[in-house]
Amino acid sequence: MSKDIAPDWIAVDWGTTNLRAFAMQGATVLARAQSEDGMGKLSADQFEPALAALIADWLTADTVPIVACGMVGSRQGWVEAPYRPVPCTPLADQLTPAPTSGDLDVRVISGLSQAAPSDVMRGEETQIAGFMQLNPGWDGVLCLPGTHTKWAQLSAGEVVSFQTFMSGELFALLSDKSVLRHSLKEAGWEDDAFSGAVNDAISKPERLAARLFGLRAGHLLHGTGAATTRAALSGLLIGAELAAARPYWLGQNVAILGMGRQANAYLAALETQGVPAMLVDTESATLAGLTAAHRQSKAYS
Amino acid sequence: MSKDIAPDWIAVDWGTTNLRAFAMQGATVLARAQSEDGMGKLSADQFEPALAALIADWLTADTVPIVACGMVGSRQGWVEAPYRPVPCTPLADQLTPAPTSGDLDVRVISGLSQAAPSDVMRGEETQIAGFMQLNPGWDGVLCLPGTHTKWAQLSAGEVVSFQTFMSGELFALLSDKSVLRHSLKEAGWEDDAFSGAVNDAISKPERLAARLFGLRAGHLLHGTGAATTRAALSGLLIGAELAAARPYWLGQNVAILGMGRQANAYLAALETQGVPAMLVDTESATLAGLTAAHRQSKAYS
Repeated sequence: MSKDIAPDWIAVDWGTTNLRAFAMQGATVLARAQSEDGMGKLSADQFEPALAALIADWLTADTVPIVACGMVGSRQGWVEAPYRPVPCTPLADQLTPAPTSGDLDVRVISGLSQAAPSDVMRGEETQIAGFMQLNPGWDGVLCLPGTHTKWAQLSAGEVVSFQTFMSGELFALLSDKSVLRHSLKEAGWEDDAFSGAVNDAISKPERLAARLFGLRAGHLLHGTGAATTRAALSGLLIGAELAAARPYWLGQNVAILGMGRQANAYLAALETQGVPAMLVDTESATLAGLTAAHRQSKAYS
Repeated sequence: MSKDIAPDWIAVDWGTTNLRAFAMQGATVLARAQSEDGMGKLSADQFEPALAALIADWLTADTVPIVACGMVGSRQGWVEAPYRPVPCTPLADQLTPAPTSGDLDVRVISGLSQAAPSDVMRGEETQIAGFMQLNPGWDGVLCLPGTHTKWAQLSAGEVVSFQTFMSGELFALLSDKSVLRHSLKEAGWEDDAFSGAVNDAISKPERLAARLFGLRAGHLLHGTGAATTRAALSGLLIGAELAAARPYWLGQNVAILGMGRQANAYLAALETQGVPAMLVDTESATLAGLTAAHRQSKAYS
């Protein structure tokens, strides 16, 4: 089999549930590959074969540098890449080499930590670095929606502070596993129910706990539909998050790193508060961040 | 096999996960039986055989009246016993007969509903009725801890209003299914962490969303132990509930219907706010309520 693809380095985004790899020539993507060998499924000795299998077609006689970000660098990952405390630049020059038995040369990007309030991120620091590459000189607040949404304050090329919210995971647990699942069986989304719930939760955040079961009762007593209930649940959770994250967005320059439904929900929620935000594609940012890490750390090979 | 037990009626507490039956003579328990044939596991035609199997030893040639409360009366249960809107007495004279193919004579107690804010209960109305029987003339607020904790305002023998909170279910989902489970693996409980978190959530309820992931980060960065994390998670959720339920307990006469760890957590949380509460045994209240329903509805047989 001939080798059509000869990357000069390989970028790897290795999260809890997915493994994605990009054959790179400078900042250009030559090819991509992905599998479901996320960090959460692998034991320490399974990382090397999982990666080797995915990128086998891209390997040449010469060793190709590989730069990885995400949960692969956690304590339960391939190698622990120690947290770097904020305030700091999102990327360090130094990466952490992963132990390998063969020819792979893999370096892992460190996450960031904050002492008080206690917080950590892993993977998002690379997206933040990429966003900074793509928007040089930009100061403001970046919102990174996800299972664990992050809000990060950026200034003069550094991450000054950040805060994580579990709203995404809470939405998944409540809509899939709690008694509310019975009221959310059909698909759909009702914009007005969402913005109403956002406003309600922002103005009276202490009512969140009281409002949740009300969604179930509204369905039982008044036949409230799934589209309304789903949007209201999302609105309550994102509204409560905005109430807690107010110092991050009030009067700030805000960008949202994400393109899916969840990112659009954050955009709409911020709009209800009169806060415009810029939507930025996640993959571009991740690749720009991995590229920056690769360039910065040239010293290693 | 000789019949040692000859009840004049049978009390049944049939919830989502358990079925419990009591052979009764007036208000006296002659025998008890229980199984895991909860409403959640049964289809419509499985209720009658499940009950018949459990109480077979108690049945005589004469038909014995059976009174049941709980989720058995929901739309997904044996027969739908329609909600009664508050304000009203916790029990009506009229019970709903369950369809049977054999000799069982089963009547089901209705739940209560509230139009605004939307809310429902099923099973707790019987405990409330029993509490009223055991404490005649008592006016105040009853807290019924559970998967879905209820707060009910009682006055002059009626349930005036009530409110349901999902804090119990949220605690179970977050400690078993979310990323926080990694930080809660060992047993234990730290009282100070609990009361600190209660105070924090009551005084700044909008911070709940922000504090949850902080429990995970505190474990990763500072090695916070499981006993502290578990108590803090419980304290945050119950504190947020107390913030939302303030009109129910502030300056009120409060009783807590429950005896386990969860009931004691509510007692301790109310103590942090200077609110004394009386703890009342749930089973006594349930039986007193079923007995009252049986006596009130004598007309039916």
